[in-house]
Amino acid sequence: MNDERLASQLDFIKLADHLKSVTRRNYLAGGERLENSAEHSWHIALMANVLSEYSNANVDLTRVTFMLLVHDLVEVEAGDAYAYDDQAQSERKRKEERAAKVVFGKLPRDQGERFRLLWEEFEAAKTGEALFAKAVDHFLPVLQNYSSRGKSWIENGLTKEQVLQYNACVRNGSEKLWHLVVEMVEEGSRLGWLKKPSK
Amino acid sequence: MNDERLASQLDFIKLADHLKSVTRRNYLAGGERLENSAEHSWHIALMANVLSEYSNANVDLTRVTFMLLVHDLVEVEAGDAYAYDDQAQSERKRKEERAAKVVFGKLPRDQGERFRLLWEEFEAAKTGEALFAKAVDHFLPVLQNYSSRGKSWIENGLTKEQVLQYNACVRNGSEKLWHLVVEMVEEGSRLGWLKKPSK
Repeated sequence: MNDERLASQLDFIKLADHLKSVTRRNYLAGGERLENSAEHSWHIALMANVLSEYSNANVDLTRVTFMLLVHDLVEVEAGDAYAYDDQAQSERKRKEERAAKVVFGKLPRDQGERFRLLWEEFEAAKTGEALFAKAVDHFLPVLQNYSSRGKSWIENGLTKEQVLQYNACVRNGSEKLWHLVVEMVEEGSRLGWLKKPSK
Repeated sequence: MNDERLASQLDFIKLADHLKSVTRRNYLAGGERLENSAEHSWHIALMANVLSEYSNANVDLTRVTFMLLVHDLVEVEAGDAYAYDDQAQSERKRKEERAAKVVFGKLPRDQGERFRLLWEEFEAAKTGEALFAKAVDHFLPVLQNYSSRGKSWIENGLTKEQVLQYNACVRNGSEKLWHLVVEMVEEGSRLGWLKKPSK
């Protein structure tokens, strides 16, 4: 291959393949196995298109969709930081910053810049698009946990308060989806899938 | 949930989760395991955005991206038809037509109609968007096979002619990507990853 631009694009595409090997801590909706970050990204990009009418703000759906396609890419270098692991979450930002340089740096500069900006917009969670994208990204695991009878909530010994607090960002993107989160978490708690907080 | 529209959207989202359990016949680029159709869909939607400059026609990238997100959804009902299995391919159309009714029928009518039209456009492979989407969909497994040292080509005993014929559609969407397909297949053949045709 003597075309440098194309060669770097193919390198990026091959690196992206590794996102299929980054395992998340939540199960598929049927509970059969843990989900990986690539299939998760597909699902939420699709979902954003199904649920866009519930976004609090009017959003540019193309930007939301593409943001969701790239939002986890840094994990091919940094790994997935488990939502309820405070230590992992505090290291996450630094590790992902470094990873972003490697991952987006594979692409030709114009494309790398565009992808990086979308990822930063998602992380900053300020624009309507980022807020809705975050809401969908957090909503899916709650739905999957609820559908799999609380499987990963139980395994990780979570409380209702922890789940509500971690997913509070759903409300900033969609009041409607937040209402559903609360419903599922309340029901999960009632059914004993979430621990009582220690007094 | 007393909101019928939202309930049907959530049903669709839960059904879509099953695409993560539809196993394809090609391996990940590293050869570690077979790929599933959900992560494949994510990868090609991302790739289309990286490689769009090589599309033969000027395309609406938003439509290409969304087409790729939905193009395999019927497989949650119909399963994946292996590319080089003539029997499976001849039954595919009928099975997928039936599956499309079930899958897109889960959604509220307006959304189901929109998704179905995109799927039909992809299958018909006439518009510039569909031709480029098909090209990317076929290009990735060739790249993965090549990267994994011909793993699934070898396992399935394919010839160079079979692979070129099945992927000839890449040329209709992108001359540049087709050129790469030919290069990889020629090299794979030279290295013995593809069988010589029986005389």
